[in-house]
Amino acid sequence: MTAGTLYGVGLGPGDPDLLSLRAHRLLGATAHVAYFRKAGRLGQARRIAEGLLDPQACEFAMEYPVTTEIPLSDPRYNEILGAFYTECTTHLLGLLRTGQDVVVLCEGDPFFYGSFMHLHSRLKDQAQVQVVPAITGMSGAWTATGSPITWGDDILTVLMGTLPEDTLADYMARSDALVVMKIGRNLEKVRSAIDRAGRLGSAWLVEHATMPNEKVSRLSEVDDTTSPYFSIVIVHGQGRRP
Amino acid sequence: MTAGTLYGVGLGPGDPDLLSLRAHRLLGATAHVAYFRKAGRLGQARRIAEGLLDPQACEFAMEYPVTTEIPLSDPRYNEILGAFYTECTTHLLGLLRTGQDVVVLCEGDPFFYGSFMHLHSRLKDQAQVQVVPAITGMSGAWTATGSPITWGDDILTVLMGTLPEDTLADYMARSDALVVMKIGRNLEKVRSAIDRAGRLGSAWLVEHATMPNEKVSRLSEVDDTTSPYFSIVIVHGQGRRP
Repeated sequence: MTAGTLYGVGLGPGDPDLLSLRAHRLLGATAHVAYFRKAGRLGQARRIAEGLLDPQACEFAMEYPVTTEIPLSDPRYNEILGAFYTECTTHLLGLLRTGQDVVVLCEGDPFFYGSFMHLHSRLKDQAQVQVVPAITGMSGAWTATGSPITWGDDILTVLMGTLPEDTLADYMARSDALVVMKIGRNLEKVRSAIDRAGRLGSAWLVEHATMPNEKVSRLSEVDDTTSPYFSIVIVHGQGRRP
Repeated sequence: MTAGTLYGVGLGPGDPDLLSLRAHRLLGATAHVAYFRKAGRLGQARRIAEGLLDPQACEFAMEYPVTTEIPLSDPRYNEILGAFYTECTTHLLGLLRTGQDVVVLCEGDPFFYGSFMHLHSRLKDQAQVQVVPAITGMSGAWTATGSPITWGDDILTVLMGTLPEDTLADYMARSDALVVMKIGRNLEKVRSAIDRAGRLGSAWLVEHATMPNEKVSRLSEVDDTTSPYFSIVIVHGQGRRP
């Protein structure tokens, strides 16, 4: 095991005021910080952490070699991403072996979808790892709608907009409450699936939840064909209400 | 609308160090705090807040008139609970109308199951309300297992242990990742359902997640017939891993 510890620190849905006390303390104290981002962008994780890091901290930006240029179904996608995660792991292990702690900034909760887990799975048998859970993006989204997502015995299903339309429609029709993530370019497919499931009238699209440009719209009234990658669709449950 | 604001403040899974910065600040500043609890107990929400409140704060403990003494299916359950929530609402509205702010302490996230929403639904058209999202109990539970709950396109289903066994088994068989909450006296039923769904071998029982007495067990190796109310069963997804 390495002398240094890798901290996978969840930053929550976007508002820095929603960081946990532990996350806030770790960010301010670390000498080494790492984060994923699309090449040429600041990146959502780094943006949330702005002003909270030690100005002397050494930053390691892990830039995805590919995001949506290659479809997920193309075998090259896993191959290129796999090599990238291994390269990042090698760099981080180098730091951890010299006794340095490293904080990896994670959007939302580190163990709920996201990229941190691809480092974690490669590092966990060789390095000390600690994970700090966080408020999920979906919690930020349902809070933005101003209504509870689930009541009583409601069943909640969380779906990714990247799934096939038939799969989406099938699961949407069978759940009380719904969360659909990774909307982005999948917006039209998600809307079509939710309509087939008879739930379009009660669906909301939440963009930039908890951030200054937060926007909540009825999905049926959205004309756009794409939406920010981090947008989330919400259908509230209607369970037991004494 | 009332002059005072009602804050529904999520406290997260149990460790006070996982409170958000905003929640921590609101707790320390409020002159009026309210929380639900079982009669005769300190209550989980109040326990998490111990030491974080202004010692001069006025406390309003809302004690459930019934918890498991009457089955959920008995019409008296909704009747008694409904009258109780209305009584609590009346008291809170009295404070809010005199311009006092009130913080309601909520276990987990206020809009994800829980009791706060029964106050919220009664108050939202008469009072200023602000909700502070929080780390859910399930995030605490999957973090405790040391493995990510969902990868890639995994479908996650959240079920309550209070549902009928056939319903549980049906949904458990169709989901990649599973979270089952409200285990308590439903432990045997949940175990039987998860076994019928062919998932018992990969199920974990997490008790007191993020707290000093946190315990993670393979569900197949648990001999008990009951478990703490806040225990959570977890089955991890096995999705795309570049």
